[in-house]
Amino acid sequence: MIIVMRDDATQEEIKQVMSRVEELGFTTHPSRGAKKMIIGIIGDLNREELIESLGAYPGIDKLVPILDPYKLAGRTFSEDPTVIEIKEGLSIGDKKIMIMAGPCAVENEEQVRVTAEKIKEYGATVLRGGAFKPRTSPYSFQGLEEEGLKILRRVGNETGLAVITEVVDPRDVELVGNYTDIFQIGARNMQNFFLLKEVGKTRKPVLLKRGLSATYNEFLMAAEYIMSEGNYNVILCERGIRTFENYTRNTLDLVSIPVLKKLSHLPVVIDPSHGTGHWDLVAPAAKGAIAMGADGLIIEVHPEPTKAMSDGQQSLKFEKFASLVEELKKIAAAVDREL
Amino acid sequence: MIIVMRDDATQEEIKQVMSRVEELGFTTHPSRGAKKMIIGIIGDLNREELIESLGAYPGIDKLVPILDPYKLAGRTFSEDPTVIEIKEGLSIGDKKIMIMAGPCAVENEEQVRVTAEKIKEYGATVLRGGAFKPRTSPYSFQGLEEEGLKILRRVGNETGLAVITEVVDPRDVELVGNYTDIFQIGARNMQNFFLLKEVGKTRKPVLLKRGLSATYNEFLMAAEYIMSEGNYNVILCERGIRTFENYTRNTLDLVSIPVLKKLSHLPVVIDPSHGTGHWDLVAPAAKGAIAMGADGLIIEVHPEPTKAMSDGQQSLKFEKFASLVEELKKIAAAVDREL
Amino acid sequence: MIIVMRDDATQEEIKQVMSRVEELGFTTHPSRGAKKMIIGIIGDLNREELIESLGAYPGIDKLVPILDPYKLAGRTFSEDPTVIEIKEGLSIGDKKIMIMAGPCAVENEEQVRVTAEKIKEYGATVLRGGAFKPRTSPYSFQGLEEEGLKILRRVGNETGLAVITEVVDPRDVELVGNYTDIFQIGARNMQNFFLLKEVGKTRKPVLLKRGLSATYNEFLMAAEYIMSEGNYNVILCERGIRTFENYTRNTLDLVSIPVLKKLSHLPVVIDPSHGTGHWDLVAPAAKGAIAMGADGLIIEVHPEPTKAMSDGQQSLKFEKFASLVEELKKIAAAVDREL
Amino acid sequence: MIIVMRDDATQEEIKQVMSRVEELGFTTHPSRGAKKMIIGIIGDLNREELIESLGAYPGIDKLVPILDPYKLAGRTFSEDPTVIEIKEGLSIGDKKIMIMAGPCAVENEEQVRVTAEKIKEYGATVLRGGAFKPRTSPYSFQGLEEEGLKILRRVGNETGLAVITEVVDPRDVELVGNYTDIFQIGARNMQNFFLLKEVGKTRKPVLLKRGLSATYNEFLMAAEYIMSEGNYNVILCERGIRTFENYTRNTLDLVSIPVLKKLSHLPVVIDPSHGTGHWDLVAPAAKGAIAMGADGLIIEVHPEPTKAMSDGQQSLKFEKFASLVEELKKIAAAVDREL
Repeated sequence: MIIVMRDDATQEEIKQVMSRVEELGFTTHPSRGAKKMIIGIIGDLNREELIESLGAYPGIDKLVPILDPYKLAGRTFSEDPTVIEIKEGLSIGDKKIMIMAGPCAVENEEQVRVTAEKIKEYGATVLRGGAFKPRTSPYSFQGLEEEGLKILRRVGNETGLAVITEVVDPRDVELVGNYTDIFQIGARNMQNFFLLKEVGKTRKPVLLKRGLSATYNEFLMAAEYIMSEGNYNVILCERGIRTFENYTRNTLDLVSIPVLKKLSHLPVVIDPSHGTGHWDLVAPAAKGAIAMGADGLIIEVHPEPTKAMSDGQQSLKFEKFASLVEELKKIAAAVDREL
Repeated sequence: MIIVMRDDATQEEIKQVMSRVEELGFTTHPSRGAKKMIIGIIGDLNREELIESLGAYPGIDKLVPILDPYKLAGRTFSEDPTVIEIKEGLSIGDKKIMIMAGPCAVENEEQVRVTAEKIKEYGATVLRGGAFKPRTSPYSFQGLEEEGLKILRRVGNETGLAVITEVVDPRDVELVGNYTDIFQIGARNMQNFFLLKEVGKTRKPVLLKRGLSATYNEFLMAAEYIMSEGNYNVILCERGIRTFENYTRNTLDLVSIPVLKKLSHLPVVIDPSHGTGHWDLVAPAAKGAIAMGADGLIIEVHPEPTKAMSDGQQSLKFEKFASLVEELKKIAAAVDREL
Repeated sequence: MIIVMRDDATQEEIKQVMSRVEELGFTTHPSRGAKKMIIGIIGDLNREELIESLGAYPGIDKLVPILDPYKLAGRTFSEDPTVIEIKEGLSIGDKKIMIMAGPCAVENEEQVRVTAEKIKEYGATVLRGGAFKPRTSPYSFQGLEEEGLKILRRVGNETGLAVITEVVDPRDVELVGNYTDIFQIGARNMQNFFLLKEVGKTRKPVLLKRGLSATYNEFLMAAEYIMSEGNYNVILCERGIRTFENYTRNTLDLVSIPVLKKLSHLPVVIDPSHGTGHWDLVAPAAKGAIAMGADGLIIEVHPEPTKAMSDGQQSLKFEKFASLVEELKKIAAAVDREL
Repeated sequence: MIIVMRDDATQEEIKQVMSRVEELGFTTHPSRGAKKMIIGIIGDLNREELIESLGAYPGIDKLVPILDPYKLAGRTFSEDPTVIEIKEGLSIGDKKIMIMAGPCAVENEEQVRVTAEKIKEYGATVLRGGAFKPRTSPYSFQGLEEEGLKILRRVGNETGLAVITEVVDPRDVELVGNYTDIFQIGARNMQNFFLLKEVGKTRKPVLLKRGLSATYNEFLMAAEYIMSEGNYNVILCERGIRTFENYTRNTLDLVSIPVLKKLSHLPVVIDPSHGTGHWDLVAPAAKGAIAMGADGLIIEVHPEPTKAMSDGQQSLKFEKFASLVEELKKIAAAVDREL
């Protein structure tokens, strides 16, 4: 942490700040330029709190954090990329890229089974489907809840696909955990800290979606919440951020892939369906993701998108999904990965 | 809802869309321009779902919603502004502007008592203070929890101030409800729909903070979640949105006041402390809010901001708060309100 | 400037950076924490260039600027607020708040004259009107050009109102300067540096509008471009920034008023017409601006907004303008200003 | 265009709006739902102006544009993708992807010659370099101006590379045109309409960079400005937009590639250097761009980035550029393109 004093800070103000810092247990390294007095602070600090208490001193111009606030999620914790085992013989973060696919919402068993069989045939290894649906409107379809979880599990077992589904309420973590192989934390819940802690207490893999306006720092701090409870099996998922451009549902930040891989050791997955919101943009976005080093994709696929109960406009039909996977294989090979 | 077909939509595609719409129970009003075919749809529709299922038709260019999606939160539900009674003799939404003040976090009883006495003396009627603190870092101070709630209640009772505090977990709604007069839902939880439903089941007033990247529409839909459970006592609170400008902690959207009052009948409160993040910007922001028609303010006040456990840099000292209230009284008078 | 080295920076990399900095003529102040090596740099640096050349060193994690990049526009250049004389007896930046009003575009002499007479009667002192219109579409009305300038000047002379009009092309600065009392630089041209330099060579006041996505820093650097050519008569104008919210035309950043006044000595004007884009939001936004310390307002007024050739939806009719001014007078009095 | 009337619009208000629309020469198609009155408008309208004049009617809730505002830049103007010939034997928009590379700024002839020879050897066909530099600070290096143009031309002639350089002032279009093969319009000038018109009067190819906060619509309307003057040789260039995330210099919107190709027939180029601002993110961004269908890349390359006069931190060294091109070739082959 570096403290930059105001040009007009008095000797008394500087002294007060330094005493306070030392009182908090840190060593100070003052240095004076032509215009500015700067105080470096050294120690094992939790900077957020320090910022908050020091920010109120009138003589201070600004506080500049130096260390990254995440510990377990950061590269200094692990030089090597983390490989997470989902179930025996299936892992993410290694050479093989993981394809997760399925309908936005679980509507009925037939829909899920047909989809699961097709996506498996075309190369997916994880079946996605929402049983608890967080919807903008209280009047929209909210999901089949436990019945949906049961369908996913049955179809997962039948097909051998692993299952991922969203958990939205800390009270449901145990219930959902009984059925799923991977917890999904949605973008709207990225800073639902009590939910993060609850999945952190399990040891099941968690796919954590980036919030609509979350910085990389905040995203990694949300991962840190899960990891600080002991669950290190966190998968980061970029699914689009909110910007001024509203032609697409969100602005998919594909450069987050190399950035997150630089800052963190955790695997990175891209969601081109929510990231774009248009079925005809899913394929190009997925191709870019693979070329840029993503460890996985999560894609909405529906037997009949025009009759989907949610997200039909961004869901792929089976044949589109099949041909996309073929194209992705070529790009994966071009960057020394496998699909 | 209006459906705009693509320029190159075939007769077959148009027919399919119209059949599907009629199958869903709506009347269609097609009209054809020089370039575009447009289909108007009439009926009591839940548009979100309709959009999602129709968006997947290849012949469709775009879907244009016409009706606002909120019902109970909107102006058509109530022409008159809603006045919410907090406790006997204290209400929000009428001529008198409500000042809520207090520390960001409850740190100890002495801190809360001293603050409560002072803010009451200067004109506040509601005591704020966090007992459960949602923090970006898992290593930051997370609040005194139930002990904090007890302190707030005791000091509230002693001073006659009403109490507002944040609830962050649906499991805690009953507990927090035992101590508080107003539930606060934080910005990060604006779309934590299960929490919204839980406070919706009570009849206690709820101050709902706008999410960092929530549109007015989404903000009012979050209010609708609470209201759709039967709790109509919702207070909207603008506390700054996230933009590219990061000199201030957030960009306080003061124009939201007249917009929300145009779209909705619910009272509107401004949080100039989080909205700006700098104690010396709190006063100007608060003045603007009053001039623009806000029904209340929620302001962080701390006996010794430089020692605050959180948000010290945006907290006012007692004397600053006192002089701010005096200035606000003059502006309130200029716009025919009272403080 | 502070250089933060990477955790894994080698001795050799640190040495290289320090030599390079010294070679550039600066003194280095290295200090080493538990994890990070930090190098303070002292000297009269132009930081942008230093950043750019140093950023390429592999051992560097980040560069943290300490000094503000603007000199003439900043508070250290002038402690006192700048008062700019527009013409004899008329200035901005002092106790009296300046109202600039008039149509978006000059359409014909009659329209301008009627408007000018009315706004003068109600208290405006400056007549605004566009003769060169930068329009998003090449097929839209582009303005009356020199004919429009002549109309403005004639009506200005007749009524005694000062005149403000936009200049959009560096080749037109002389021409426009022959007719106007204040140059307006539009938001889209805030970083049209050649235009800024050209108006900087004159000594006429310049109202500089903030770009749609310009930070405060960039805004003040644009003012610095004008001032560095010798023209210190710069008026800053906030007119809304671009955010994800598109109910309003822009998000009017009213907190920019106290921020700009903290960072700079230049007068600050608010444009509530472009800032909101809705005529019924202009009045509340204008009231907020006055309460928050704005030195002036620039408002679109049109005799018949429904027939305006541009911006009709955000223009006030005469009677609305008249009653707004009356309301503003009360708020101005409440904050010790005059209108 | 569709006009949505307010719920409480009176018969009189509806009649007024309809008369006005018919007076403007359009046919009206009114239709009335349970709650809303909607008026469809048909005719060859310039919608922007219509919106602006109608928006002021009190009975109107909102105006919904149906047709895209661009004509020449849109897909309806040309079904086939446009191929632009830069010089004999060199074109963009066909199977072969164009690599433009070179230093941010022309610093001296030696620097440009060394770079040109290397990039040519590694596969680039166009040499980039700035002679007029629009800089945020007036105190930064502003470019070698005409001397820089001469260097670019000489080196271009010697090496057989085509030349691209930025023009920033409408007065310089002729001068710059004497030396360059492609005009570059920078992001800050995307809505400098007088500059757009000036390059539109030439027939030289123009690479138009997207503004920092420009929507796709505005971007294509800027292209329309150039095309409406008769110059159809416009190349669209995405170089990052401004969002809340500031770890990267900008947020590179790679999904713009398929979107722009859907809306327009013009070639699309990606600038991964400005788009990310970090040399180590340039390669992944470039790979994604190729996988997603970009027609070209423009990359900053410098013999010694640590000594660059601008943008050193985002410039590639020769060997990095060479290995990037090799990687890109593999991805291009995977998507049936060539490099």
